[in-house]
Amino acid sequence: MKLIRYGDPGREKIGVQIDGVNYDVSAFGGDYNEEFFGNEGLARLEEFVKANEGNLVAVPEGTRLGSPLARPSKILCIGLNYRDHAAETGATIPSEPILFMKSTTSLSGPFDDIVIPKNSTKTDWEVEFGVVISKTASYVDAANAFDYVAGYVLHNDVSERAFQLERGGTWDKGKGCDTFAPMGPFLTTKDEISDINNVRLWLTVNGKTYQDGTTRDLIFDVPFIISYVSQFMTLLPGDVISTGTPAGVGLGFNPPIYLKPGDVVELGADGLGTSRQVVRAYRG
Amino acid sequence: MKLIRYGDPGREKIGVQIDGVNYDVSAFGGDYNEEFFGNEGLARLEEFVKANEGNLVAVPEGTRLGSPLARPSKILCIGLNYRDHAAETGATIPSEPILFMKSTTSLSGPFDDIVIPKNSTKTDWEVEFGVVISKTASYVDAANAFDYVAGYVLHNDVSERAFQLERGGTWDKGKGCDTFAPMGPFLTTKDEISDINNVRLWLTVNGKTYQDGTTRDLIFDVPFIISYVSQFMTLLPGDVISTGTPAGVGLGFNPPIYLKPGDVVELGADGLGTSRQVVRAYRG
Repeated sequence: MKLIRYGDPGREKIGVQIDGVNYDVSAFGGDYNEEFFGNEGLARLEEFVKANEGNLVAVPEGTRLGSPLARPSKILCIGLNYRDHAAETGATIPSEPILFMKSTTSLSGPFDDIVIPKNSTKTDWEVEFGVVISKTASYVDAANAFDYVAGYVLHNDVSERAFQLERGGTWDKGKGCDTFAPMGPFLTTKDEISDINNVRLWLTVNGKTYQDGTTRDLIFDVPFIISYVSQFMTLLPGDVISTGTPAGVGLGFNPPIYLKPGDVVELGADGLGTSRQVVRAYRG
Repeated sequence: MKLIRYGDPGREKIGVQIDGVNYDVSAFGGDYNEEFFGNEGLARLEEFVKANEGNLVAVPEGTRLGSPLARPSKILCIGLNYRDHAAETGATIPSEPILFMKSTTSLSGPFDDIVIPKNSTKTDWEVEFGVVISKTASYVDAANAFDYVAGYVLHNDVSERAFQLERGGTWDKGKGCDTFAPMGPFLTTKDEISDINNVRLWLTVNGKTYQDGTTRDLIFDVPFIISYVSQFMTLLPGDVISTGTPAGVGLGFNPPIYLKPGDVVELGADGLGTSRQVVRAYRG
């Protein structure tokens, strides 16, 4: 299945995408949140969709899409997890995963604007393969890690490099700004991706390709990451782990290239669809 | 007012503490969460309590207290914000606040056990003065920052130093472990603390005093911190900003002193009450 959420920000309704058409399933009830994922929501939704096949109402064309999952308890990210990206940033290959969090208020829709924060000069892009957790996970073995996966989601881990790297302390100042986590267009359930170690992911700015990588180049793979993170904190249903970005971010160029108002960012990944964000300045 | 939550973990009911006695106010409805704080919940609760004065039912003695606020969207923390603590850790005084996040799954009750994670040898304590946000805050001026404060809460920012400092990347691995954020006993509304720049806070382990500081020694004060954090991300009603810890953490001793099973941690702050946690090993 492909799960979508649509409508005005903060008041999204739930839906599914079938053969490229978005259908409303708000009669199913609830939202795609911790309660949904933690209570066999995916299996129940599949039955609901089957039972209502042919009677589902299409979402009007042009309707805004929100993030395909409701605000989770955590958005966790793995840093420097592609060999080529670690190299371009001048970092050494990490010996174990680098972990950081994005504030959940950064979550936004796949076609929403990216807002450059006030006083920002170094807003950058990062196409990522995101993993959505299906059930409470604590001290999980890598061998069982897929049991804890609901599905996958395309994520642009937007990053303000000056806030992240030049303002002291951790990376959190530059990762959690509003609109810095466009997710979607849809959440693809895990059964639909036959080989998550062979997913191409790419990103363009104003039509020019900057990132074109594959999950084959991950330093730490998805089962290892889930197991690893679960040693440090409990993952809840609906939580997202974004697995890192391949080479080609703006920071990696000499001189670096950063986003400016009017730029158009497009990104995609095999099986996860494509998204598009227009960049704009903050309006106070 | 002093807000409490009581009952089994994950199923807490809401209450208020009056003259040292905890009363049930679950008839008020809802929880102390984003919706409550964001919709004048404190003012409505005050009216409810007045209207029901004399008819409130006391919570039975011995009932577990939960965190006095429901799981927020964010627990933000300021690092190295007391001059003496920065000195003891060998860090230089930061030129602007150091910001990091604790995963919200670390939230626990004021008298719950602190669980030492698997493979942990360096679990440490940090008594802190926490600020609870009352309404959505983005690019707030320090001069208006108190308009965004609901109240204050005692917080033990439990920290695994090896996970935090020796495992690569940001501090997040060592700050967000389960049970690493005991909060409470109660949330004190802002009207009850006459001078937040003169709050004594202390912490003992097995009866021996390790921390005994005052918010007079904060490098960055509460209004500045609220304004500062709101430049990087939107704060939501119910979010917590923990303002840092004074000198006396285990890491600061030579050799360092870390928590072991059976240890008893007690902490308190003027106007915010006291809490007590027994330390135990993880039981798989």
